[in-house]
Amino acid sequence: MTDYWIAPSILSADFARLGEEVENVLDAGADIVHFDVMDNHYVPNLTIGPMVCKALRNYGIKAPIDVHLMVSPVDRLIGDFAEAGASIITFHPDASTHVDRSLQMIRDAGCKAGLVLNPATGLESLKYVMDKLDMILLMSVNPGFGGQSFIPSTIDKVREVRALIDASGRDIRLEVDGGISAKNIAEIAAAGADTFVAGSAIFNQDDYQAVIDTMRRELASV
Amino acid sequence: MTDYWIAPSILSADFARLGEEVENVLDAGADIVHFDVMDNHYVPNLTIGPMVCKALRNYGIKAPIDVHLMVSPVDRLIGDFAEAGASIITFHPDASTHVDRSLQMIRDAGCKAGLVLNPATGLESLKYVMDKLDMILLMSVNPGFGGQSFIPSTIDKVREVRALIDASGRDIRLEVDGGISAKNIAEIAAAGADTFVAGSAIFNQDDYQAVIDTMRRELASV
Amino acid sequence: MTDYWIAPSILSADFARLGEEVENVLDAGADIVHFDVMDNHYVPNLTIGPMVCKALRNYGIKAPIDVHLMVSPVDRLIGDFAEAGASIITFHPDASTHVDRSLQMIRDAGCKAGLVLNPATGLESLKYVMDKLDMILLMSVNPGFGGQSFIPSTIDKVREVRALIDASGRDIRLEVDGGISAKNIAEIAAAGADTFVAGSAIFNQDDYQAVIDTMRRELASV
Amino acid sequence: MTDYWIAPSILSADFARLGEEVENVLDAGADIVHFDVMDNHYVPNLTIGPMVCKALRNYGIKAPIDVHLMVSPVDRLIGDFAEAGASIITFHPDASTHVDRSLQMIRDAGCKAGLVLNPATGLESLKYVMDKLDMILLMSVNPGFGGQSFIPSTIDKVREVRALIDASGRDIRLEVDGGISAKNIAEIAAAGADTFVAGSAIFNQDDYQAVIDTMRRELASV
Amino acid sequence: MTDYWIAPSILSADFARLGEEVENVLDAGADIVHFDVMDNHYVPNLTIGPMVCKALRNYGIKAPIDVHLMVSPVDRLIGDFAEAGASIITFHPDASTHVDRSLQMIRDAGCKAGLVLNPATGLESLKYVMDKLDMILLMSVNPGFGGQSFIPSTIDKVREVRALIDASGRDIRLEVDGGISAKNIAEIAAAGADTFVAGSAIFNQDDYQAVIDTMRRELASV
Amino acid sequence: MTDYWIAPSILSADFARLGEEVENVLDAGADIVHFDVMDNHYVPNLTIGPMVCKALRNYGIKAPIDVHLMVSPVDRLIGDFAEAGASIITFHPDASTHVDRSLQMIRDAGCKAGLVLNPATGLESLKYVMDKLDMILLMSVNPGFGGQSFIPSTIDKVREVRALIDASGRDIRLEVDGGISAKNIAEIAAAGADTFVAGSAIFNQDDYQAVIDTMRRELASV
Repeated sequence: MTDYWIAPSILSADFARLGEEVENVLDAGADIVHFDVMDNHYVPNLTIGPMVCKALRNYGIKAPIDVHLMVSPVDRLIGDFAEAGASIITFHPDASTHVDRSLQMIRDAGCKAGLVLNPATGLESLKYVMDKLDMILLMSVNPGFGGQSFIPSTIDKVREVRALIDASGRDIRLEVDGGISAKNIAEIAAAGADTFVAGSAIFNQDDYQAVIDTMRRELASV
Repeated sequence: MTDYWIAPSILSADFARLGEEVENVLDAGADIVHFDVMDNHYVPNLTIGPMVCKALRNYGIKAPIDVHLMVSPVDRLIGDFAEAGASIITFHPDASTHVDRSLQMIRDAGCKAGLVLNPATGLESLKYVMDKLDMILLMSVNPGFGGQSFIPSTIDKVREVRALIDASGRDIRLEVDGGISAKNIAEIAAAGADTFVAGSAIFNQDDYQAVIDTMRRELASV
Repeated sequence: MTDYWIAPSILSADFARLGEEVENVLDAGADIVHFDVMDNHYVPNLTIGPMVCKALRNYGIKAPIDVHLMVSPVDRLIGDFAEAGASIITFHPDASTHVDRSLQMIRDAGCKAGLVLNPATGLESLKYVMDKLDMILLMSVNPGFGGQSFIPSTIDKVREVRALIDASGRDIRLEVDGGISAKNIAEIAAAGADTFVAGSAIFNQDDYQAVIDTMRRELASV
Repeated sequence: MTDYWIAPSILSADFARLGEEVENVLDAGADIVHFDVMDNHYVPNLTIGPMVCKALRNYGIKAPIDVHLMVSPVDRLIGDFAEAGASIITFHPDASTHVDRSLQMIRDAGCKAGLVLNPATGLESLKYVMDKLDMILLMSVNPGFGGQSFIPSTIDKVREVRALIDASGRDIRLEVDGGISAKNIAEIAAAGADTFVAGSAIFNQDDYQAVIDTMRRELASV
Repeated sequence: MTDYWIAPSILSADFARLGEEVENVLDAGADIVHFDVMDNHYVPNLTIGPMVCKALRNYGIKAPIDVHLMVSPVDRLIGDFAEAGASIITFHPDASTHVDRSLQMIRDAGCKAGLVLNPATGLESLKYVMDKLDMILLMSVNPGFGGQSFIPSTIDKVREVRALIDASGRDIRLEVDGGISAKNIAEIAAAGADTFVAGSAIFNQDDYQAVIDTMRRELASV
Repeated sequence: MTDYWIAPSILSADFARLGEEVENVLDAGADIVHFDVMDNHYVPNLTIGPMVCKALRNYGIKAPIDVHLMVSPVDRLIGDFAEAGASIITFHPDASTHVDRSLQMIRDAGCKAGLVLNPATGLESLKYVMDKLDMILLMSVNPGFGGQSFIPSTIDKVREVRALIDASGRDIRLEVDGGISAKNIAEIAAAGADTFVAGSAIFNQDDYQAVIDTMRRELASV
């Protein structure tokens, strides 16, 4: 049975009381913390960096922190986030000239490594590094821009990546990010995803646990 | 009598409870909040963006927020920070091709505008925009790098900029950032500065008010 | 029966009397106007921008204007050209980090959207955005450089893209640009193209209609 | 007596009939043609390149064409514009790492050479290349952005540059660009300028000659 | 029978006596000289440029010099190296926007042309330029970083590229670079490679000929 | 009495026997080795990097190696060259955003630090870092381009920098590079320079010692 992970994106949390927010959402049943890093170059927005990650660890957060680097270049921040307590670090292959090397840097720093594919991006960058991947993240919206809804063609892409992972025989998580809610999570899971980023769907509700419970029920139905 | 401002840099605050930290330091007597924005391009570090500024406003912070953009280019983030509640926005003239335009953008957005000079940077960029400046910020350490101490030659630079401001007859604040503590604040004020950024000197102490009180006593002696 | 379009590239027109030139070539039977935009960064040349497009509309040109962006980045110019009266906007996927988003921007602005592939570029970027494409443009010379002849391997590429379009069941035009003349237009059409950019082959002749008529006869024979 | 030049900026002309427009404005008394080149990198706009300059020469325009490069880098376009018939080529010193070399390239190509200073830019870049300058252009608005009015502090800057030119004893023209009309041309001339770019002030009027005559009368009064 | 080439990388030679080193390694049986060019932008290191290549020719080296450009952009250095005596010039397709054009430039300059693929890079860039390739170089370590060992998944990639070359019926050499020694050269050859870059494996030994002889014996056993 | 240094630029030496060349020119009386590093980005050429510097040290060269970085950015190569045995490292202030920091990095690595000014570059960058400078290098040709002659206006610039150095009371060498020969060395020294880079003037002669002796005699006459 699939071990599904719900990964609240802290972009939608209250940054004025982030420790408490993260604690609450984990208490409400979230599995990992999704940490969105934007540098105003790879995407047109600037969010939060390693210091904020470190502050969460100092606050006492023990859950895995899943750092999604929407930055270019990536190598310097890989080191900074590994030191700041990241558990998983993913980056976009088009943001690094030396993808194999960057993946190795992440693992050498003791973290899990992954690649992220934009909605229009093909699967070509995965083939020769499948043995260096712990996670593949498919964007179901365009990163760095607000107010978008789930891009339907992502479902087919999830199926294709699931097939690649299964064919590899490796233990690689398949994460999807963008426009996920209790309404579509089962369909995405059915296509083969096992890790689900949700931002406003969770943090914009008063009762985090109610949302997460609903998501779990949906996932249980797959 | 000079209206001195003490401006704690939130880079040294606890990002897991930022609203509370900022509230506490303002209650302890700080005048404005200094907000350091780094993009991993202008400086080799990535910190916090507009969303965090907005969260402070939503938390109820009313004090002026003094946003120091260590980013390049600057124009998109000017708009984002103005919307997020910034009061003052300063940037480095070498980070914008169109300095006059960027200054106008800040004022058009309803904020106070300023320029920041790195330790080695001369005063040439100030002359033709004195009428568009509300603040001049002199870096007394190199921005974006940790663990530095106050660069002594800054004192002379403060004197020169003070002379420029006085000659202009304009109401322009003169801020200094880097390695400031109760030990050297009086000397810097005596040279002509009126706004003092302090990070670890305040936030690394248990009693913020005690530090700020000491700084005020030092300033009163100038 | 295929609805073939002949698309004269105004790069070969007389820029001192552009309105008249475009009017003449449309009167001579051209279907659309091909508008080549180069920024001296994506390609080593700088040509014409939105103001020139706007001038054609003000002059009274009603035919579709097919804007080919040989620029990087693309997003700001998409907005500018949509306002200037562009009908179709195509760009190179390697010139935009967020291809899906840029395509959406074009459609949201009320224009038809397309991608352009350089001679050496594979078809990988098409797959996940077929539902957002109105046109695919294959370069049969290297853009931005003068004096080149049609690259023969383009014929096979046209066949492959035609197969992709047919398999998708969508209404996507297949345009080819570079070294096209009455001599090879039938062969290119036979391979599956339906839109043909021609520059000097048309504008360097005294009688535009004669050339276009010859091209039409060739196309009728396919 | 100063030999004043009125330099209509063709950015405000009708690009659909550019040859005719330029001919008309020269017949109406303009001295030179001001040709604004923007590349969407140095400034946020893309205008016209060497091919358009060449078309004006082919059309029969004999007057000096004064090419203002708002591009970065500049060296490749210097060569292209020299071949396309430019008479004067000016560029921004902050757009070229090797300013002395770029100035030499312009002269070696048989053109007059100049530097352009943005509103906030100081005069530091002029000193060591005064012997390689035929023109200094002061921007009185921010280049690349529309709808701006003349920045008043430019008047003092004109005076300072006039003093530098006079002190050098060299034959260097002093041009001003941005927000110039019959209303302020005399004041700008009185400060020391001798070449005046005017765009909409001329081309947005029905009678070009009437505007230029008015400007001449104003200049005669200086 | 395959014509194997052993290509010592001069990065591991003694740069204080480079002519002698290259002469010795050729006398010891090397077939060609592998010349690694890094520009501190495409890779984080800066090595040697065209002048050093030229010096080898002036010294009397007649063997093919196989220039591997780890630089971006590539076009200017293609010309410089062709003039400096390069025999083969290879570059990374992700380092040039106009791959087809860059390949043509190399051949037009009288050199053999090739593409280089990083460890994580797929084969997509090869398909439409197979007729313009004389060499395909597969990196079996990440270029520009020291102290790495042969990446095992390269073996499968060699097989795939060998199949592409054979299917094309063209005379294209298949070179591998990174972590090659007498211990694994036979396995790599068996997978389909015919040209082997070796750096420290040769130059860090006292007797170059002994190493090369051992490699030849290994290759003879394939 | 001034301690003049003659600094042969190894760009003009024979790179196939560099150790021997450098040894010979030092035996012929040169004081230091001038090492020109170009990265094809700051200047349009690529020369030699840290490995070549290291090779000279391994060869036994004990004289100071004066590394002139014509690269951008500079920080990574500062570290590499310090490890490779550089004695002096100079860079262009326009090639580093954080000039004060880069100068500190050089000294922290145990090397002498300096700034280099291009022919058109003013002296503004020197003022606030005079206490961190061991050398100021004035370019008397444009770096990175061949076949230029000494720019005469450099003489005045040498005088101005000499005055700045004398006023500072610090021990800062004043070096000049470009077009220096026995014919003009005395005039340059008379203006205040104490270190003279010479490339082809030395290495293109058969008898290095004869050239250097002539230069010394000229210097003795100042």
